[in-house]
Amino acid sequence: MQKKRWAVGVDLGGTKVEVSHVDSTGRVRRRLRLPTGLDQDIAAIKVEIITAVKEVVGSAGSRPAGVGVGVAGQVDPDQGVVRFAPNLPGWRNVPLQEDLKKKLGLPVVVTNDVRAATRGEWLHGSGKGCQDLVCLFVGTGIGGGIVSGGRILSGCSNTAGELGHITVDLNGPFCSCGNRGCLEALAGGLAIARQAREAISAAPAAGAFLLKRANGQPENITAKTVAEAAHFHDPLALQLVDRVTEALIAGSASLIHAFNPCRLVLGGGVIRGLPELIVRIDQGVRNRTLKAASKPLEVLPARLKNAGVVGAAALAMHLEAV
Amino acid sequence: MQKKRWAVGVDLGGTKVEVSHVDSTGRVRRRLRLPTGLDQDIAAIKVEIITAVKEVVGSAGSRPAGVGVGVAGQVDPDQGVVRFAPNLPGWRNVPLQEDLKKKLGLPVVVTNDVRAATRGEWLHGSGKGCQDLVCLFVGTGIGGGIVSGGRILSGCSNTAGELGHITVDLNGPFCSCGNRGCLEALAGGLAIARQAREAISAAPAAGAFLLKRANGQPENITAKTVAEAAHFHDPLALQLVDRVTEALIAGSASLIHAFNPCRLVLGGGVIRGLPELIVRIDQGVRNRTLKAASKPLEVLPARLKNAGVVGAAALAMHLEAV
Repeated sequence: MQKKRWAVGVDLGGTKVEVSHVDSTGRVRRRLRLPTGLDQDIAAIKVEIITAVKEVVGSAGSRPAGVGVGVAGQVDPDQGVVRFAPNLPGWRNVPLQEDLKKKLGLPVVVTNDVRAATRGEWLHGSGKGCQDLVCLFVGTGIGGGIVSGGRILSGCSNTAGELGHITVDLNGPFCSCGNRGCLEALAGGLAIARQAREAISAAPAAGAFLLKRANGQPENITAKTVAEAAHFHDPLALQLVDRVTEALIAGSASLIHAFNPCRLVLGGGVIRGLPELIVRIDQGVRNRTLKAASKPLEVLPARLKNAGVVGAAALAMHLEAV
Repeated sequence: MQKKRWAVGVDLGGTKVEVSHVDSTGRVRRRLRLPTGLDQDIAAIKVEIITAVKEVVGSAGSRPAGVGVGVAGQVDPDQGVVRFAPNLPGWRNVPLQEDLKKKLGLPVVVTNDVRAATRGEWLHGSGKGCQDLVCLFVGTGIGGGIVSGGRILSGCSNTAGELGHITVDLNGPFCSCGNRGCLEALAGGLAIARQAREAISAAPAAGAFLLKRANGQPENITAKTVAEAAHFHDPLALQLVDRVTEALIAGSASLIHAFNPCRLVLGGGVIRGLPELIVRIDQGVRNRTLKAASKPLEVLPARLKNAGVVGAAALAMHLEAV
């Protein structure tokens, strides 16, 4: 019997580490979520990843084609060196690919986590079969990935797809990147929570419902609180969601004009919490884009639960013949 | 003696038609500007183009590799059919490539004029040797082209690079595309003239200098009038140029974050009229983009006088062996 090709997918995110057995169709067959806190030192995190990969490989009964790792940070694509990872303390110029390769005796490839998630959605999710695709992941922050003419764009220094930092309001609030009115500064999860707190502070009566759901503590408010309150038809929450929607429509219009994708795939926690945004953005962009650009466009929700591990594994799937 | 490879470049723009002999290094060796008005019927324009191409070929003494035509409109890339050209009355679904091919007995390729200009700058201008390049042409309107990983992006329906219609101010003025606050609606030549007229109307005293340079007729004001007045340090003109600069910085920040180009090449009449914008945009984007994205970036003026014909000819240069 011919052995089935498979790979290990690792997601080294800002809040968790996952190690999975992913088959060649993109299905996750086994998933380990590591108990590690990401505030641990780098060596300890590496040891935990290695142990988990070995466990996944051991229980599979066959050798994987390779190990793909998606990291929430800047990665040098040639050597798989993690240059900088804002949410992983101390991770600067860590040669993760080389280290894991030596310790595991397996081919390893390290990439950016959003780039990996884009690959996952492209090959096995809502982008399947499509050669021109923009993925926009709206979570705490906003990231993205672009497939154009059947290739994932990487750019000059491997940072193409920083779609959270496209300007949608040149007079808007300052963003951590130095720009003003970035999409992330208006529609990312942290921005939604900030805008809710500002609105409550400006008009406490209007904010009563939201505040109650946060147990009276403004600092407890998250994008999820706002989404849930909107689903209870709270007027302030609805207004906040309208503003987020407008920003996402304006940003999506830019992406459609710049890249002319066949599909715009929207994922991330904010979209999962407000699934009605898909239809609203779809309708909104059709009124705000050139017909020639939007005519072939489909706006779709991301389909995979674990696009990051699936995409990282997909990248590793052809590193070695089985 | 081996004959030198060359091609005919044709620019069928919104205001003029040019037919040129372009050599394989991108140099224009001979240039005919047709006397034709573009309000003539399509058949008459075609006849003039054919006559001019024959004249260029006749005087060259050797057969060109092909004829490349850049058209200010949407072009079907497979068949070279002009789908729609907003500034060419009646041009809808014109099979220009096939028609010219039959009449000329030469290989012909028809493409969009901005795409052609991008190819020109890429191969023979400020983009030479570069694999990741964004060209932004700021004229009456704003268009662009993207080279990513050594390929010109075309997108799902061949409209990638509509960079005039990226949103920079979601509350900004309405744009012809249906969107609000497009880059073109704030920084294109027509928008500059419109903003000047609005400012003069709102504050006639402040607008006196500008109005005088337009012979007292607000409708005579163009982007050129504003640029010239700014160079005379007219406060209102300087203020208008500042707003245009801010919009171009905001839009460029988006392009840098989306595409991560090695070079951002700025061309078109507005840039030629205000060459100081290059340095201002260069400085501005460094404060408004992620270091990882802008570190390798160079901001450069477009270098070719006739990027459109040079690029169209370059596309035709390998259609036929000489």
